Amino acid sequence: MAKLLKINHVGIAVHNIEEALPFWTEGLGMKLHHVEEVARQKSKVAFLPVGESDVELVAPTAEDSVMAKYLVDKGQGIHHLCVETDDIEGLMNDLKAKGFRLINETPVEEPGRKMAFVHPKSTGGVLLELYEVTK
Amino acid sequence: MAKLLKINHVGIAVHNIEEALPFWTEGLGMKLHHVEEVARQKSKVAFLPVGESDVELVAPTAEDSVMAKYLVDKGQGIHHLCVETDDIEGLMNDLKAKGFRLINETPVEEPGRKMAFVHPKSTGGVLLELYEVTK
Repeated sequence: MAKLLKINHVGIAVHNIEEALPFWTEGLGMKLHHVEEVARQKSKVAFLPVGESDVELVAPTAEDSVMAKYLVDKGQGIHHLCVETDDIEGLMNDLKAKGFRLINETPVEEPGRKMAFVHPKSTGGVLLELYEVTK
Repeated sequence: MAKLLKINHVGIAVHNIEEALPFWTEGLGMKLHHVEEVARQKSKVAFLPVGESDVELVAPTAEDSVMAKYLVDKGQGIHHLCVETDDIEGLMNDLKAKGFRLINETPVEEPGRKMAFVHPKSTGGVLLELYEVTK
């Protein structure tokens, strides 16, 4: 059976990375690892490591992005929780077999990682990302 | 200067622990460590370890509790992020000196731990808990 390894990251929705960063870096003393453009999601992500996890600040780069719509509806704040597993397909099959609903039917693959979201209807309101590090 | 050590936990607001648990335990295969009544906050908390962190499911035990009011306003979902530090007073003094706003002026002390919340106005919408493990 698939194992959960750790919290990979907590994703935080922000209007603007540059405006959001000072609290985390100057206030809490976290180090900014890097900022990445995620073209597929029309967003920009700042990675701030803490222990074995990251805090990720996610800002939209286009007004028609999912994140821009989220910010209009809900405002800034914690957006999703991402847990890392050693077997994302196994975990997804297990969840489906037990009647839990997924947003992605198959994992989204990118170099070095596979990801899929579980539907908040099945988690009690949490947008939960599943994540596997691949070779 | 105070150091951040890890994500101590992610707190998730739920109506009812027993109804919320099956997704995390049966679906994701997490182990329930224990359930604790927190009288001071009129809530009940289920601790689910994952790596060096916990997922905490928090349910109100009284209708006049902060958590019951939160659920009426916002519904179930991720409620707060808690980061662990080696020096909570140092970190709080630092944050205040830099103009960031705290909810607790001094840490709440319980056996084995000290805790304080940063105001969401200073974090960009995140309810952030600071946590120190004490002897």
